[in-house]
Amino acid sequence: MTFYEQFDDRLSAEDLGLIERARSFCRADFRTRAHEAYLRDQPFDVDIVRQWAELGMLALQVDRSVGGHGASYLCKVRVAQEMAEHSFAAAFALNNMQGMATRLCRDGTAEQQGRFLERMMSGSVIAALAMTEPQGGSDLRKLATHVNRVEGGWLLNGTKSWVTNGTIVNCLMVLAHTATSSGGSDIAGYLVECEDGKGLTRSEIRVPGAQSFRLAEITFKDYFIPATAQLYGPGEAIKTSLEAINAARVHVAAMCVASLRSALGSAAQYCGSRVAFGKDVLQHQGLRWELAQVATQLEAASALVFKAAAAVNDRRDARDLAARAKAFAIPVAVRGIEECIRVMGAVGASSKHRLSMLHSEVRMAAFADGTQEMLLDRIGRTLNEPSDAKPNANVAADTRQS
Amino acid sequence: MTFYEQFDDRLSAEDLGLIERARSFCRADFRTRAHEAYLRDQPFDVDIVRQWAELGMLALQVDRSVGGHGASYLCKVRVAQEMAEHSFAAAFALNNMQGMATRLCRDGTAEQQGRFLERMMSGSVIAALAMTEPQGGSDLRKLATHVNRVEGGWLLNGTKSWVTNGTIVNCLMVLAHTATSSGGSDIAGYLVECEDGKGLTRSEIRVPGAQSFRLAEITFKDYFIPATAQLYGPGEAIKTSLEAINAARVHVAAMCVASLRSALGSAAQYCGSRVAFGKDVLQHQGLRWELAQVATQLEAASALVFKAAAAVNDRRDARDLAARAKAFAIPVAVRGIEECIRVMGAVGASSKHRLSMLHSEVRMAAFADGTQEMLLDRIGRTLNEPSDAKPNANVAADTRQS
Amino acid sequence: MTFYEQFDDRLSAEDLGLIERARSFCRADFRTRAHEAYLRDQPFDVDIVRQWAELGMLALQVDRSVGGHGASYLCKVRVAQEMAEHSFAAAFALNNMQGMATRLCRDGTAEQQGRFLERMMSGSVIAALAMTEPQGGSDLRKLATHVNRVEGGWLLNGTKSWVTNGTIVNCLMVLAHTATSSGGSDIAGYLVECEDGKGLTRSEIRVPGAQSFRLAEITFKDYFIPATAQLYGPGEAIKTSLEAINAARVHVAAMCVASLRSALGSAAQYCGSRVAFGKDVLQHQGLRWELAQVATQLEAASALVFKAAAAVNDRRDARDLAARAKAFAIPVAVRGIEECIRVMGAVGASSKHRLSMLHSEVRMAAFADGTQEMLLDRIGRTLNEPSDAKPNANVAADTRQS
Amino acid sequence: MTFYEQFDDRLSAEDLGLIERARSFCRADFRTRAHEAYLRDQPFDVDIVRQWAELGMLALQVDRSVGGHGASYLCKVRVAQEMAEHSFAAAFALNNMQGMATRLCRDGTAEQQGRFLERMMSGSVIAALAMTEPQGGSDLRKLATHVNRVEGGWLLNGTKSWVTNGTIVNCLMVLAHTATSSGGSDIAGYLVECEDGKGLTRSEIRVPGAQSFRLAEITFKDYFIPATAQLYGPGEAIKTSLEAINAARVHVAAMCVASLRSALGSAAQYCGSRVAFGKDVLQHQGLRWELAQVATQLEAASALVFKAAAAVNDRRDARDLAARAKAFAIPVAVRGIEECIRVMGAVGASSKHRLSMLHSEVRMAAFADGTQEMLLDRIGRTLNEPSDAKPNANVAADTRQS
Repeated sequence: MTFYEQFDDRLSAEDLGLIERARSFCRADFRTRAHEAYLRDQPFDVDIVRQWAELGMLALQVDRSVGGHGASYLCKVRVAQEMAEHSFAAAFALNNMQGMATRLCRDGTAEQQGRFLERMMSGSVIAALAMTEPQGGSDLRKLATHVNRVEGGWLLNGTKSWVTNGTIVNCLMVLAHTATSSGGSDIAGYLVECEDGKGLTRSEIRVPGAQSFRLAEITFKDYFIPATAQLYGPGEAIKTSLEAINAARVHVAAMCVASLRSALGSAAQYCGSRVAFGKDVLQHQGLRWELAQVATQLEAASALVFKAAAAVNDRRDARDLAARAKAFAIPVAVRGIEECIRVMGAVGASSKHRLSMLHSEVRMAAFADGTQEMLLDRIGRTLNEPSDAKPNANVAADTRQS
Repeated sequence: MTFYEQFDDRLSAEDLGLIERARSFCRADFRTRAHEAYLRDQPFDVDIVRQWAELGMLALQVDRSVGGHGASYLCKVRVAQEMAEHSFAAAFALNNMQGMATRLCRDGTAEQQGRFLERMMSGSVIAALAMTEPQGGSDLRKLATHVNRVEGGWLLNGTKSWVTNGTIVNCLMVLAHTATSSGGSDIAGYLVECEDGKGLTRSEIRVPGAQSFRLAEITFKDYFIPATAQLYGPGEAIKTSLEAINAARVHVAAMCVASLRSALGSAAQYCGSRVAFGKDVLQHQGLRWELAQVATQLEAASALVFKAAAAVNDRRDARDLAARAKAFAIPVAVRGIEECIRVMGAVGASSKHRLSMLHSEVRMAAFADGTQEMLLDRIGRTLNEPSDAKPNANVAADTRQS
Repeated sequence: MTFYEQFDDRLSAEDLGLIERARSFCRADFRTRAHEAYLRDQPFDVDIVRQWAELGMLALQVDRSVGGHGASYLCKVRVAQEMAEHSFAAAFALNNMQGMATRLCRDGTAEQQGRFLERMMSGSVIAALAMTEPQGGSDLRKLATHVNRVEGGWLLNGTKSWVTNGTIVNCLMVLAHTATSSGGSDIAGYLVECEDGKGLTRSEIRVPGAQSFRLAEITFKDYFIPATAQLYGPGEAIKTSLEAINAARVHVAAMCVASLRSALGSAAQYCGSRVAFGKDVLQHQGLRWELAQVATQLEAASALVFKAAAAVNDRRDARDLAARAKAFAIPVAVRGIEECIRVMGAVGASSKHRLSMLHSEVRMAAFADGTQEMLLDRIGRTLNEPSDAKPNANVAADTRQS
Repeated sequence: MTFYEQFDDRLSAEDLGLIERARSFCRADFRTRAHEAYLRDQPFDVDIVRQWAELGMLALQVDRSVGGHGASYLCKVRVAQEMAEHSFAAAFALNNMQGMATRLCRDGTAEQQGRFLERMMSGSVIAALAMTEPQGGSDLRKLATHVNRVEGGWLLNGTKSWVTNGTIVNCLMVLAHTATSSGGSDIAGYLVECEDGKGLTRSEIRVPGAQSFRLAEITFKDYFIPATAQLYGPGEAIKTSLEAINAARVHVAAMCVASLRSALGSAAQYCGSRVAFGKDVLQHQGLRWELAQVATQLEAASALVFKAAAAVNDRRDARDLAARAKAFAIPVAVRGIEECIRVMGAVGASSKHRLSMLHSEVRMAAFADGTQEMLLDRIGRTLNEPSDAKPNANVAADTRQS
């Protein structure tokens, strides 16, 4: 094992065991079934959720005391990379579920944990965050969803868009205003069980080739949520979201690295076995250099992602590194997979290979947890600070864009 | 009209009228129906072939004496660009049919013309070239298809891949060896009527998002073709194919320019109407510059494509220009559309907009009429020739790759 | 002649004759002497100014009635390209002088023409524009130079920076405020004879490798200029400068194209003659493709520059095209020459070849007549305008930057 | 200190102390004097060699038992980075001397060590490797230099090119054939004292802006070398050179990272203090993003270089990583510094700032220890090997190029 060696040097034996278990599953059953689903224009089979839960992967970072594995952040990243080699979207969606279980274990009330935690870890509750809205996009200042107090709880109104697992989700963490103030200090977070029909409607969002995200838009109209549903009080909801953003950025970047690695491996293998103009394609120096350039970019992305992941893992200030890791890795992966497709000739783009799927999926990474534009603004903000003494500026600054 | 003005300056009133007619059709009926088909994961409706024929577009370059329009090459390019603004694949596929009618009018026997020409111009015969094979790709020296003399004709054996309109084609121009020699001088061309079952089988090639090419692999097993079917004698088939390659390269490059132009227009319009962080997205200088960079590349591609198209039109030596135009325009279009998608945010990738479709379609342009690798070899070959006095080297050199 | 053929198709026999005359001179005497000067770390010999004038090149666009050649804009561009193949800086500096003669012929009073025109055409008066200032850069709103009325003329105060030919200039067109208003409507233009010592001091600005621009900063302290010196009244000075900007941008872009063409020619020739690892370097496919990529970009730049030049020549609205041509051609030239240097190995960077010089010189093109940033703002401004009907917006908008 | 933190985590207190000492010197005296020399078109003052030696830097990796510091490879890299922030060429040249002392300490005979080692550590002997030749470049199979046995030693004939410190070197490690066989197994290495005139001539190689390398071509004509001068026997010379190449590649890449970091810091500081169009330049989002892109690339280069340096330091197989680190970092640095220059406006290119110098110097890094072409061939060779089990292939393969 060399490509991921920087990670492996830092992982416990237990973490390494979890990764090995994930790898075995992903390279066998999952790999085959994900591609078969893709050939049918379907998302990966939901039964895989159950299998993934059985492997313990939905409880990876959940405390051991409540049935989880207490794995490190670096371990979580590596597990997601193992799956992202075969489907970025599935890795993203399944890790999303794992993240909700971890969050609940950390921040939920006893009542909330009792109701949801076990079912989240077993995969019977499919949970997701719901922050983005159709009009506001990533701009939390434009959040329009709100709750109104009623007897025994609240009525929820608003629309959430681009919800991961949105077509099958049955539990949402919803950010909503509790007052009419436009500031944001009144935004709270609710753990909402989703029952279609009772004021909740959903419509699928189709992104060709990226169906495994199961994206949907979910609209609430006077949807009742009980008093016990509040997970974060006013003001806390945004704070906790922002605290999570560096980890999320690096995590997404790491999955992109894995998807590109897999695409490059496929392309190199194909080109090494196909003959054109008298020798195998990889023996044509020009084409070989094109793949070598991709390999070089990939290695740089991997090294940067590790550096940022280690900072997140060690709870150091990772804002700049996380932004740079994502700003670097996503375009490298999108363009790199594109190049792998091109180099393979027309067959590379066909559904016979997974590269078109990976490209469509990885492209969506650009929009999760901060667009390229927000990242560049974040990076640009500290260009002129002496790197020898970085001030510990307010994390919330991350959502501003000038 | 400014974007295509270089073309327009060179077109006759009649040519301009044909383009106007194509534009009206494409911006109305076609645009809507192409997108609707895409939403259903279908290729554009075949009925559009009939309508396009009725507009005279399948007989664009066919001689006026036999019912065509005798349009110039520049006119043909512009007509294809009008459609490529809405679907690159449809423009490619429909122009392919037009090209077969033109070829038949120029090179066919009276018997062949009598049997096919009118039906090709009306769209009831769907014809296509069949050169590429599964193993050999673009390398004609590896052509394996061959014919054997039998009473009254030949028996055809071999497999053709990546056939445009392959799932619906009913007439193929097939290149095949007539002898066992491996040289190529024995390769002839046959106009083959396609009847499934009688030794002909086809299987669809699925390229996600690019279904409008209707690509298929077609296999012949002792398939009988009559003596009258020979369109090109041994040796002529390759020669005529190579002569057509410069025109084809520039034509494909020109369609890519049109698709990118359309994508950029969509992105600019969307970004100009969407508000984020307090102002419309296009008012954010960084993002505006990203689109300005795409616009700049687009303008360069358009200028280069025109220069090459004019050379083809005027029957000057266009080998270098055609190679450079395609080598420049295809990556500019693929990356430019990708950038337009990204800049629009996640919605840009969804099937709500046509950009993902255009990206999947334009990506295939790289493989038609010479891959990027073959083009770079072509361009590299004359780097060291004084441009003031280019030798008129053998066109056939185009298929060599070192 | 094929590379510049788009130009040549549009030039009169007289124009073609002038270009041929320039080419002969540049490829012989000039080429040799420019390189010799570079080896001595010197700008090209001033005696070349006299020779260039004798060829008529300093009066290229001056009216025939007063001794000029009345050449077209396209001709002027091509003449400058001939010299830019050997030294971009010299071509820039000498054309600058020519531009001043043309301006004087068009806008000067009879007194001014009588005093300067003949001497400008013969090269004994070295004239230049002086707009840029140390603090304001390209932002005319920050112009600080001003004149105060005195008996018989004005006293001039202020500093002009980055003056082309600044170390030898003896006649400057200076923009200066005539009142204290900050608007700009009071800015006038003066034709100032330069006498060192009498309140005028100059200091050389050293740009390593680009000494042939002979850049200097010139400071005026109570420098007297006579009443007859006013060339443009208040308000006219900016207007005339802005009107000239599209022509200037395209012209600079065209010279960059010529410099890159020359660098590519040198690199291809060198690589074609040098043997490494058993064959000449150009036979290594990977390296050949690198140069082929440069050749492809060059061809696109050339086509776009011609398109923009034709628009300027024909007095069509060229604002967008000019901005795009410069925004495309300058980075293509800078990176392309850099690539040529790299491909040649270490020797490419040494003073034995002219490529390092061309790189240092072409790099400066980015700063003349609008930085990349200003161009992108200009291009971004019309992204959302329907290209079929462009409004004839105020040219002055070109200096705004948001 | 955050930028270099990955290194610092792995360094001993003693190593960190050496780096701190180097940093203090470089940021004070050296920085100022290097820039002053540049303004005079001179290499850095030779007196700096003596000062650098006094700091112990010419004995960094020499064994403590003979007066050196026994510093780690990572420490050596960081020391070189401290100087490369101010002059890449000086850092390269001075480290070259240090490398010769280390080599002598490791491989020299007692006689050779007695004669040279102390003088190398004190800087009075300026030593360098001499491998490259005018015709053969990096291709050792074309080595033409040879020795002939004579009484008491050999007569040396041949020409070495691109010798670092070549204008002042007084001790060369020369590779030369000992027989006429063309294989390479007869190539030996000699430690040659250089006395001009006695059959040794040198001529400076001028690379504009990069004079601090003091490059020269050195020709030997029947130059006598004593029997004691042989450092490596036939066959050993090439082997030891190849063993050193991974360390050298990473080292050069690391210096490039440092030079780019310095250039970016200068550009950000300048843009943060200069006002244009109403606000400081760094407040213009578009330009800020351009620098943010450079910062992102820089961070990736730094992370990759560290990963490769750690592998070299720990004596793991670093061939792929070293090749990728150099292939990534050099173009990132060259283009990044170029971008920093451009963003600063014309002043960035002037000799007032060190950026043009850094650009000219860093450009030369491409040619040391394997061109981009050789690196891509190296990287391409293992594309198709499973990364989980890399074969320990012959290092010598690094010099082949197909």
